[in-house]
Amino acid sequence: MLLCDIGNSNYHFLKKDEIFKKDAKFFNPSTVEEDVYYICVNQHVKELLKPLKNWIDLSQYIDIKKYYETMGIDRIMACEAIRDGVIVDAGSAVTVDIVKEGRFEGGFIYPGVRAMGECYKNISDALGYSFNFELDLDKMPKNSRDAISYGYIKLLHSEVKSHKMDIYLTGGDAAWFAKIFPTSHVDERLLFKGMKNIMKKADIC
Amino acid sequence: MLLCDIGNSNYHFLKKDEIFKKDAKFFNPSTVEEDVYYICVNQHVKELLKPLKNWIDLSQYIDIKKYYETMGIDRIMACEAIRDGVIVDAGSAVTVDIVKEGRFEGGFIYPGVRAMGECYKNISDALGYSFNFELDLDKMPKNSRDAISYGYIKLLHSEVKSHKMDIYLTGGDAAWFAKIFPTSHVDERLLFKGMKNIMKKADIC
Repeated sequence: MLLCDIGNSNYHFLKKDEIFKKDAKFFNPSTVEEDVYYICVNQHVKELLKPLKNWIDLSQYIDIKKYYETMGIDRIMACEAIRDGVIVDAGSAVTVDIVKEGRFEGGFIYPGVRAMGECYKNISDALGYSFNFELDLDKMPKNSRDAISYGYIKLLHSEVKSHKMDIYLTGGDAAWFAKIFPTSHVDERLLFKGMKNIMKKADIC
Repeated sequence: MLLCDIGNSNYHFLKKDEIFKKDAKFFNPSTVEEDVYYICVNQHVKELLKPLKNWIDLSQYIDIKKYYETMGIDRIMACEAIRDGVIVDAGSAVTVDIVKEGRFEGGFIYPGVRAMGECYKNISDALGYSFNFELDLDKMPKNSRDAISYGYIKLLHSEVKSHKMDIYLTGGDAAWFAKIFPTSHVDERLLFKGMKNIMKKADIC
């Protein structure tokens, strides 16, 4: 049995304790013979998986009334992984979701590191800096690199901290954000935990 | 005598009490016969103006030690316009600058409404919403449009309010931000005020 979280770029697999990934452009899911319990935000891959009987979509076991109709299944699975806290999932977008006593309390979407970097660069080449994650967040900037870094990082930092809850960090850029949330729980397997919890509830495993 | 603030898209003129603008792509500055005191962030236009003796660059009268080398001259002029407050200049970028007792205390740069909208859309077509400036800022969102609106608007709102100072709003998108800063001073002539203050200090007028 495999678990698989499919994003826009990659298939992320969990096989027992081992994580590995495959490029979404080139991987052929029909080559897998085991049962695969998956979530998928990639529309193209969704179509590929439909006819494959050993690929089981976990989104069917979600109680969507707890969330909202257009909410990404990856965000939902992260919420299913914890009981109390703020989840920061730093990928192509940074999604921030609040869970209190097992209930989803709402969340928001912020651009990911790469997308926001390109956004500043598209405004002006003069803003084409990489972000400074070592920035002093308590000091108003007096140089251009810190001025965009503060705009991106400090504003997110203040909002996330304002909820005064445990912070759970996941996603491909989690290591960057761990610098500004040093006491957070960094967990690259958070979505898999949520998927397992859903499978337990649904009596699949 | 004219004042002129030249951005990437337009020449903004002040003639006595009247404001008008000209497209930066098509306007020929050598057709103006009066003296023009200007600031300019547009590299191409800067070159056009160099040989024109009646176009006087006000940036030469700035005490740059009060600011920093790569800071936009438009931000500097806005700072010269006030004695105490937070300036929010909402254009292609949103610049936020703090002035205390006439001293620049630092500032940051955030994407403008259009740039941030494109940023979200580039991450995913599913995020291609216009921002909801009527958003309830005290409530965590439970729908996609509000999730990106909160990410863009609430985070900026919290930071600006955190300084507990008077807010001065200017720039082409000031009207949008006036919805979330209802007690702010909206002043489309803020930069011209700064330019006039600099001219007074330099004994030009």
